[in-house]
Amino acid sequence: MTSRVESHLPRLNTATVLADAVLEQETFAASLFDALREGTTRGRGICRDAYGEGESFAHRLLAKTARDLGFLVDHDAAANTYVTMAGHDRRRPRVIIGSHLDSVWDGGNFDGAAGVVAGLIAIKALKESGFQPRCDITVMGIRAEESIWFSTTFFGSSAALGKVRPEIWEKKTRVDTGRTLAEHLRACGGDPDRLRSGEPYLNQAQIAAFLEVHIEQGPVLEAEKLPVGIVTGIRGNWRLPAARIIGKYDHCGGVPRAYRHDSVVAGADFIHALDELWREWDAAGKDMAFTGGKFYTDPQQHALTKISGEVSFSLDVRSLDAQSLAQLEERIHAIANAIAARRRVQFELGAATRAPVAAVAPAIRASFEAGAAQLGIPARLIGSGASHDAAAFAQAGIPMGMLFVRNAHGSHNPLEHMEIADLLAATRLLTWWLATHCAE
Amino acid sequence: MTSRVESHLPRLNTATVLADAVLEQETFAASLFDALREGTTRGRGICRDAYGEGESFAHRLLAKTARDLGFLVDHDAAANTYVTMAGHDRRRPRVIIGSHLDSVWDGGNFDGAAGVVAGLIAIKALKESGFQPRCDITVMGIRAEESIWFSTTFFGSSAALGKVRPEIWEKKTRVDTGRTLAEHLRACGGDPDRLRSGEPYLNQAQIAAFLEVHIEQGPVLEAEKLPVGIVTGIRGNWRLPAARIIGKYDHCGGVPRAYRHDSVVAGADFIHALDELWREWDAAGKDMAFTGGKFYTDPQQHALTKISGEVSFSLDVRSLDAQSLAQLEERIHAIANAIAARRRVQFELGAATRAPVAAVAPAIRASFEAGAAQLGIPARLIGSGASHDAAAFAQAGIPMGMLFVRNAHGSHNPLEHMEIADLLAATRLLTWWLATHCAE
Repeated sequence: MTSRVESHLPRLNTATVLADAVLEQETFAASLFDALREGTTRGRGICRDAYGEGESFAHRLLAKTARDLGFLVDHDAAANTYVTMAGHDRRRPRVIIGSHLDSVWDGGNFDGAAGVVAGLIAIKALKESGFQPRCDITVMGIRAEESIWFSTTFFGSSAALGKVRPEIWEKKTRVDTGRTLAEHLRACGGDPDRLRSGEPYLNQAQIAAFLEVHIEQGPVLEAEKLPVGIVTGIRGNWRLPAARIIGKYDHCGGVPRAYRHDSVVAGADFIHALDELWREWDAAGKDMAFTGGKFYTDPQQHALTKISGEVSFSLDVRSLDAQSLAQLEERIHAIANAIAARRRVQFELGAATRAPVAAVAPAIRASFEAGAAQLGIPARLIGSGASHDAAAFAQAGIPMGMLFVRNAHGSHNPLEHMEIADLLAATRLLTWWLATHCAE
Repeated sequence: MTSRVESHLPRLNTATVLADAVLEQETFAASLFDALREGTTRGRGICRDAYGEGESFAHRLLAKTARDLGFLVDHDAAANTYVTMAGHDRRRPRVIIGSHLDSVWDGGNFDGAAGVVAGLIAIKALKESGFQPRCDITVMGIRAEESIWFSTTFFGSSAALGKVRPEIWEKKTRVDTGRTLAEHLRACGGDPDRLRSGEPYLNQAQIAAFLEVHIEQGPVLEAEKLPVGIVTGIRGNWRLPAARIIGKYDHCGGVPRAYRHDSVVAGADFIHALDELWREWDAAGKDMAFTGGKFYTDPQQHALTKISGEVSFSLDVRSLDAQSLAQLEERIHAIANAIAARRRVQFELGAATRAPVAAVAPAIRASFEAGAAQLGIPARLIGSGASHDAAAFAQAGIPMGMLFVRNAHGSHNPLEHMEIADLLAATRLLTWWLATHCAE
């Protein structure tokens, strides 16, 4: 997969000088985040609504800043923004550094935007150091990654890659406005008709690599005091959005243990068994995660003195490994069947949804590891539990790599907190990679 | 406790002749149940609403039937109905056979009423056989046992025994009408003012024993093909009506197992541990039961891809043994504390309610066992998981005994089903007891 990225031995001096030039971008980066925050604060948190005013503000800011710095600026029919540092040979496959500029409602300032700022800093530092890439390096500000707005994930990157199903334009409406995706896109200067009929803006064969910097949405780097994580892959998932356990309602005083059909006890067995499974897999070094986010007895029927006859629950199961994910699905079905027999209940798992595992290109990951070691940046390998735009590129067959930046208080909330210094550490590594792989 | 019930060796012939006289009451019993069903069917099920039209219908039917049979009929200020077969010496402490005549909404025809019919059949059979008791034998039709109507359990028996707190009359309102207990009682011919100020109608010292026949509300007798159960005691309980587990909401993709504060997993651990505890106690022959009837994540906040930060649950823990109940309370607190530490969550157990264990008088139980053997009635010892009017009498210091009658499909629903033949088996045993203990 990485054959199109030709690796050169880093010329140590150049690479480290370029990486150091990134550190000089601290004030520039901080002022960009300040401008973003000022323009998109709604109440307590940030709101960069997908194909709405908040997101469009961020795209205008990116385009204006990039033009002021002398870069090429372009948009596709999905209203994504492309900032390009032209390469010596513009016909060569380009490298794209991208992330999204939308946020959830009442979100933080760094989820998504950090990756776009990292890309812009990287090409600014390259340019100011007089670095001449042999191929284009493009920073992509992506639309509508967050699923909450239109109930669809990484829409902007999928549209750029020509992967959007035709019916989606009129079918998907924004959760708050009720207006269709097509209407929203048009209002932001996009062109749904061109997207429907034409060639995709991005051609897989013309992209050497897609790189994304993103804040970590979990607590691992924070807990381990590491500024940077080198992503090993993006987990695929298997989900049961609306599963049920059917038991039998009974008066709780009169029914002995052996005669019960208790859906709460069966559900507890199930969650407990899945947690045991996770513990085993962790111990064996195999990747998985599960979450029973919803778990509830029927408010119309449950009571203090009644054995519960029904539990509804949701299940989200993830793994970095496609084979593991298939194994987990099988194991979990077996667990449910065993509990159903033991507890005299029925499991109705309902319709499942699945998202494939998105693989990081091994050569990119190895190169990030080598770069971190060379630059003395404390980093660890880390799986991405959440999905990202990078997954859309990996699924399109484009070599993909990701870096995580330490972040406090999780994401999707106003307390999200990233230190600029940590973003600069990730960007030094990113720039080192560009200098290594895009040199003449 | 049973010293006031003088035991005589049964005169075999008399006792069995009397018991057999009960079998002749089959048509009479069936017609009483038919009349009850006809007068109190509301839609699919039975509704004998406490201090309402359905319950009053049953009391009128009891009073009229008893008068027609030549028994004395009386009412107390709580509108309970007393049907008395006068004894040779009316100053002797009397034996009361009682149960309740109210039902839940959409209930069955036998829960409660079966015990009143059993009592009436017993004294009818005694009378028709020419039996002369030395003390009064009273059949008590009790008001308002079911807690759903006024959120208070065995109100009628408590009022008869003078155990009702004064503030309850105006404070408790019926769940459907919104009218106070005092208003409802007055409308049924009761006198809340007399109850508030006066002597209790029933004096503990003047009651030799309280006996209750009731359908089993669980499936044990049905499963074991036994018509009759001899109750060993009524479980006390310890309840947490509104407990919570507080964890932390987090994006489910990014947070590894060791960093989670997952309230659903903690709740599953808790239910699972309690079930293990129950399994151990069952194996050791110690009595307990627990039910987590309610268990729910917050519908405003829970989501497929969110680690749950809060679970609400209820807990009902029961035992036939007071010391066991205290031990269970301690063990369950320890279990919650250990899970809180291990899962990084907090348990907020909220206010607890407690009901004491109600002991069956050992001599009454032993006598029932001897009688069943002598009459050849297949029976087993059984704990009562649910509470009953008999508990109010036991708590007032009156020797108490109970018999269960086999019943299909549980209680508190229209499918509840008792065979008249099984009720007659229990009544034969009851009559045998009366003949043995109330003979001249």
